[in-house]
Amino acid sequence: MPLLSNRGAEMPESPIRKLVPYAEAAKKRGVKVYHLNIGQPDIKTPEVALDAIKNNKLEVLEYSHSAGIESYRKGLAAYYNSYKLNIDYTNIIVTTGGSEALLFAFFTCLNPGDEVIIPEPFYANYNGFATTAGVKIKPITSYIDTGFSLPKIEEFEKLITPNTKAILICNPGNPTGYLYSENELESLKEIVKKYRLFLFSDEVYREFCYDGKKHISVLQLEGIDDYTVVVDSVSKRYSMCGARIGALISKNKEVMQTALKYAQARLSPPTIGQVAAEAALKTPQKYFDEVISEYDERRKVLVNGLNKIEGVICPTPSGAFYAVAELPIDDADNFCKWMLESFEYKKQTVMLAPATGFYATKGNGKNQVRMAYVLKREDLKNALVCLEEALKVYPNRVEKNKKMEAL
Amino acid sequence: MPLLSNRGAEMPESPIRKLVPYAEAAKKRGVKVYHLNIGQPDIKTPEVALDAIKNNKLEVLEYSHSAGIESYRKGLAAYYNSYKLNIDYTNIIVTTGGSEALLFAFFTCLNPGDEVIIPEPFYANYNGFATTAGVKIKPITSYIDTGFSLPKIEEFEKLITPNTKAILICNPGNPTGYLYSENELESLKEIVKKYRLFLFSDEVYREFCYDGKKHISVLQLEGIDDYTVVVDSVSKRYSMCGARIGALISKNKEVMQTALKYAQARLSPPTIGQVAAEAALKTPQKYFDEVISEYDERRKVLVNGLNKIEGVICPTPSGAFYAVAELPIDDADNFCKWMLESFEYKKQTVMLAPATGFYATKGNGKNQVRMAYVLKREDLKNALVCLEEALKVYPNRVEKNKKMEAL
Repeated sequence: MPLLSNRGAEMPESPIRKLVPYAEAAKKRGVKVYHLNIGQPDIKTPEVALDAIKNNKLEVLEYSHSAGIESYRKGLAAYYNSYKLNIDYTNIIVTTGGSEALLFAFFTCLNPGDEVIIPEPFYANYNGFATTAGVKIKPITSYIDTGFSLPKIEEFEKLITPNTKAILICNPGNPTGYLYSENELESLKEIVKKYRLFLFSDEVYREFCYDGKKHISVLQLEGIDDYTVVVDSVSKRYSMCGARIGALISKNKEVMQTALKYAQARLSPPTIGQVAAEAALKTPQKYFDEVISEYDERRKVLVNGLNKIEGVICPTPSGAFYAVAELPIDDADNFCKWMLESFEYKKQTVMLAPATGFYATKGNGKNQVRMAYVLKREDLKNALVCLEEALKVYPNRVEKNKKMEAL
Repeated sequence: MPLLSNRGAEMPESPIRKLVPYAEAAKKRGVKVYHLNIGQPDIKTPEVALDAIKNNKLEVLEYSHSAGIESYRKGLAAYYNSYKLNIDYTNIIVTTGGSEALLFAFFTCLNPGDEVIIPEPFYANYNGFATTAGVKIKPITSYIDTGFSLPKIEEFEKLITPNTKAILICNPGNPTGYLYSENELESLKEIVKKYRLFLFSDEVYREFCYDGKKHISVLQLEGIDDYTVVVDSVSKRYSMCGARIGALISKNKEVMQTALKYAQARLSPPTIGQVAAEAALKTPQKYFDEVISEYDERRKVLVNGLNKIEGVICPTPSGAFYAVAELPIDDADNFCKWMLESFEYKKQTVMLAPATGFYATKGNGKNQVRMAYVLKREDLKNALVCLEEALKVYPNRVEKNKKMEAL
């Protein structure tokens, strides 16, 4: 038979989904599995969006414009401008999810072999998109002790080579929930200007900020309009991941013209998803208030609960709906598998995402896991009990002081 | 500002959409434009599919499985098996349109720099997908005099180099409407076996065959299960282009495993589109009978009408809903632009797609255009009158015998 491609072999498997068979086996044994491993919210999609799908009058489900339905792009521009992002609808291309937006950004701005610096831990699928585009990820490690804040500018400068073409951040961050401060964004601005780099910013969790903190978009940074490219999506904002509607946003006209060629090749983003997303722009503020407050409560339940477990450290995230915690374990991959395969507490267990999949530096994140607080508080509480019990009996538990010695 | 990528610059513009501004200007002048340039059917989407969208009960518009909703994949397998394609649902990954399926096939099977042989004229967006994947297209010319039949095997062999990894066909063909015979497919089978090449087959027009002819899928060719990869889509079959639902189909397990990694990176195909596509599997045969018979009538109106115009040659297509015609003109790009910019007949004109965009060999197709017969018969007849009148007065008309001399 013919040989497959090398890049296909190099394409990473999803670190989040690879434990699925073990979860399925556990369920077959009658064990209830709490899924803290994926960011699929249980929050209802806004009624206005669901109604728009049900009440659509289309008789021919046609292609839309390759850049998206114009009225939706205009509505989206108005939404961003309500946050003072100061954009025009021509700065927006509607994409098939945030995933496609990031791919378009990579293809448009980066050549094969180019390097993009990404603070780690980062969203694991960036690895897949980088492999697809033949782009090299240069990780810059952020640490749990500082709550995963942006590494110092000097650390970035150490990584810059003639092949460095961009910095990619996720803000608020998946998996860390970290929300970048104005100072941190200003530092990034200086460095991209100094080295003429693109600043890609994945802002799909932009609505999810807590403790009264505000999200700042890179599109608000003055004087670098030609440097900034934003990836957005309606997936999490309106709990409509299945709509597959995202957006690529840039004030750099050349970027938009080039990205449009990629958009034209694949014809159009999903039409019904756009109808729903356009309607979702009319979601009442009450919906967001309730959703944010619900996530806020869940965040408190999860993070407070985790920090109460002996040997567990979890910095409080300020955004998104994820947290990365350090556990008193030898190896998160083994532990997460063991939780599904060999552990149960009152016929229950927890599925976690090993953090190793979110680091590009080998060995980093070995005793960390990512948790998504997308479940009801009651379920989170049960999951925490399970986790606490599991850590008591996990055969390869490693005490904090032992860890310190090993360092 | 930072520099964009070279591949972005090399990405071709859509040859079909680049004339759009001229059409818009014509409409602003009050001229009616008959769109024979795009394959957006005016046929209604089946009621069962539209009803499934309207009656869906989803409260959370969630991601689906990365490979697609299992019940849809099973239904799709049953659909293919009703045509004796002998596949299992695990041979199917649901994709975001046929476009994504082809990209997955390229990424999975081909390395950057690898060559794929494609009979030209071919679907223009193959150029974009090849540029995206860094793959080189080696065109093999098929000719209007033979109705665009498959070139001889010896011609293929002349093009094969150590970098050749695949042959890509579109069957029935866009833009030619050519339907490959069993003999032609058997020849392709021999060559892919001999040189260990993948045989990619874009079969999105599989339902559209005329004159009692039957479509044969490459999946039916015996003994090359590991070589064949099919791209399909519901866009044209059910006139639901905006659903953005396609499929990648192969019995090669390694291909499916690798393609799944690409599918996982982008999370999932559109959920509502899949709901509609699954319902569309229940479309009554009557719908197809009516649609095929309507296209058949349109085909006759267009092709007969074209061949009656002096100097025009148009072979009769056996499938899809396109035809490529040779016109007595100097340059199709100029002519198509002139039709929109400088010509009108009774306040009407026609938008055509210059065939040059469908050839990779420079200079080929200069006096050819592609027409999609997706308009009502009455409109097609009016468009034909316009075209005839236009050819009478086009300042750069070239007579057939002059063309012969020039050859």
